[in-house]
Amino acid sequence: MPDFVAHSFPAALAAVRQTRPLVQCLTNTVVQQITANVLLAAGATPAMTDTPAESADFARLASGVLLNSGTPSAAQYEGMREAVRGANEAATPWVLDPVAVGALTQRTEFAREIIIHRPAAIRGNASEIVALAGLGAGGRGVDATDEVAAAIMAARQLHETTGAVVAVSGPEDAIVSGGQVTWLRSGAPMLQQVIGSGCALGALTAAYLGATRGTDLAAHDAVVAAHAHTGAAGQLAAQRAGAPGSFAVAWLDGLYELDAQAASQLISIRKEYL
Amino acid sequence: MPDFVAHSFPAALAAVRQTRPLVQCLTNTVVQQITANVLLAAGATPAMTDTPAESADFARLASGVLLNSGTPSAAQYEGMREAVRGANEAATPWVLDPVAVGALTQRTEFAREIIIHRPAAIRGNASEIVALAGLGAGGRGVDATDEVAAAIMAARQLHETTGAVVAVSGPEDAIVSGGQVTWLRSGAPMLQQVIGSGCALGALTAAYLGATRGTDLAAHDAVVAAHAHTGAAGQLAAQRAGAPGSFAVAWLDGLYELDAQAASQLISIRKEYL
Amino acid sequence: MPDFVAHSFPAALAAVRQTRPLVQCLTNTVVQQITANVLLAAGATPAMTDTPAESADFARLASGVLLNSGTPSAAQYEGMREAVRGANEAATPWVLDPVAVGALTQRTEFAREIIIHRPAAIRGNASEIVALAGLGAGGRGVDATDEVAAAIMAARQLHETTGAVVAVSGPEDAIVSGGQVTWLRSGAPMLQQVIGSGCALGALTAAYLGATRGTDLAAHDAVVAAHAHTGAAGQLAAQRAGAPGSFAVAWLDGLYELDAQAASQLISIRKEYL
Repeated sequence: MPDFVAHSFPAALAAVRQTRPLVQCLTNTVVQQITANVLLAAGATPAMTDTPAESADFARLASGVLLNSGTPSAAQYEGMREAVRGANEAATPWVLDPVAVGALTQRTEFAREIIIHRPAAIRGNASEIVALAGLGAGGRGVDATDEVAAAIMAARQLHETTGAVVAVSGPEDAIVSGGQVTWLRSGAPMLQQVIGSGCALGALTAAYLGATRGTDLAAHDAVVAAHAHTGAAGQLAAQRAGAPGSFAVAWLDGLYELDAQAASQLISIRKEYL
Repeated sequence: MPDFVAHSFPAALAAVRQTRPLVQCLTNTVVQQITANVLLAAGATPAMTDTPAESADFARLASGVLLNSGTPSAAQYEGMREAVRGANEAATPWVLDPVAVGALTQRTEFAREIIIHRPAAIRGNASEIVALAGLGAGGRGVDATDEVAAAIMAARQLHETTGAVVAVSGPEDAIVSGGQVTWLRSGAPMLQQVIGSGCALGALTAAYLGATRGTDLAAHDAVVAAHAHTGAAGQLAAQRAGAPGSFAVAWLDGLYELDAQAASQLISIRKEYL
Repeated sequence: MPDFVAHSFPAALAAVRQTRPLVQCLTNTVVQQITANVLLAAGATPAMTDTPAESADFARLASGVLLNSGTPSAAQYEGMREAVRGANEAATPWVLDPVAVGALTQRTEFAREIIIHRPAAIRGNASEIVALAGLGAGGRGVDATDEVAAAIMAARQLHETTGAVVAVSGPEDAIVSGGQVTWLRSGAPMLQQVIGSGCALGALTAAYLGATRGTDLAAHDAVVAAHAHTGAAGQLAAQRAGAPGSFAVAWLDGLYELDAQAASQLISIRKEYL
């Protein structure tokens, strides 16, 4: 994928830093602070507006919207419905991060309801994506002996039923849409020791989709770019810090400092056609 | 302003560190952690009690109270009304940070209701202060071609209708009351890349007002001192760190380490009479 | 206590790092992020599920549960009741951190109600433990002229009425159960300048209780081990940092890096029989 590293990623990164996309995050209270700091460091503008009264209006103004079901309340679910309504009226791309869907009933039911409203992207770990795919109206369930294969089949099925670019996070990230899978090796295991690194990646995905909307960059590549920015900054951090407190600080620094040239040495991707 | 730097600031800083004022923050969930850490580092004592059941009682005990409308819920609005009631019964100074007032309807209506209850200070950016001034009972609206001039006119008007010291944050902060404007150059642009730096400044303003109540320091000077402490610590941080993760850490260190002598080299203020 | 340092602590630490206990935290929004990061750094797995709909189910799956009354809402109180119900059905150990009980009416009443449901441990500062003891069904009140003595009497009484191991945090921590007090000197005063360090200790207590359940380590020793891990990491941090921003980062690093050998140089405990 020399084209992605040489052209698409630099263009997407520049779009985020030049337009400073306003990202509305309806997310769990545990990770609001780190999510906002990640967006700021990467070049975007965070806003955590999530009330029923304000969410639709705000989503019409926003460049992108994130829905994350980490610590849901009744009021926040209502805010999420309003945000999706506002986002869809204004064609604002919105991203679903289905935290713990499959494991917990209430959020599983909410996810079943919301995914029919055309998310631009869905980001989760393998078990969340598999669980979410099992919920689709045309859900055939997922039947595979291999965890990675199961997740890719689930992601493909989710893409087909929702239209979303579907990203499966793991040691190697897989981004699935339109008959292709982009595999991305991020290579910073310590990111798992920083609470909110995955949730913040969902927010950054909304930032990249918002910043590149109306350009000739495909949504698929925007989602890959968000993952690449996150992972490459993680690798910069791993060069500087070996424990989670200082790693988290260095990761924020890396998100801010990363340029396209440094990224080209750190991003390793390959494409596969389904 | 040699007098402020040589006398008022050292006296206010010492008052905070000696009395460790208890600051009750009814603030948005995004910035609760950084706000508490800023208060601790600066020398104050944070408490985030914001429920309807507990807010009035707590405000009677507190040295200062902050109301920040960043992520409001119905329960927190009720907690804010209770906190203002308790604060006013005990003559506890309270500070309003009107986040996004003007841009979002619900919080604009809340601000309209609450500012008649005599805040000791109001802190916001230029557009929030202009929007808030337009809401006053005697509001004449703000009509100025220059953004800075508009904000100063709005701040003056807000001061006249509410009695509050009004602080307009920006590249140069302006603190307005009693026919005077104090201009303060803080000079750490990276503070904009740390989520909650402005919200925490609102809390620190309540700390300085609480710690200096009953002394011969004017409320105006206490508000300037809170801004000076924040900005000077930001400058210390900028000397040590060039990216937002490590800058945020160095800023907390700077808030803790700053002494009056170091501050005298970092604070640049001038006074103007309206 | 050579036995604790040489045998019990290494065994408890290894149990946490090998089993990565899942700790459900129903805690205040101020400290959710630092609590999760402390659990991750120490070797445990955090989950902040606290809604009424999900808390009982989750508590049945969790290794340990924390209830912290820092910023309670009506919904979170209901979630706490559900979590205790689920935890007790599955014999999951749960820990109560009675933040500000005694000072604030609503949470005092909640604590009175919840402590009859057999917490595995209670962790608080001296005034909280004294206040909580005064609430017991058989509460004789606490009558002592010496603050430390009062807290120990209160802790003993709480242990007798609830069955919980009771930990009193202070310059020297006291862990009380079964007629003995373990005194632990942690020696990192800067921990007081980091918001959530005490709240996170409550969560780590649940982690240690969960990881050591079914082993031959007593619950008393598991609670001491959680305090020792926290304090020893604080001492490592104090060797590296002298201001609260960088100290907090170094503390997280220390929680991750601490091994039994380093800990043996840092932990100082003594036992007393009541």
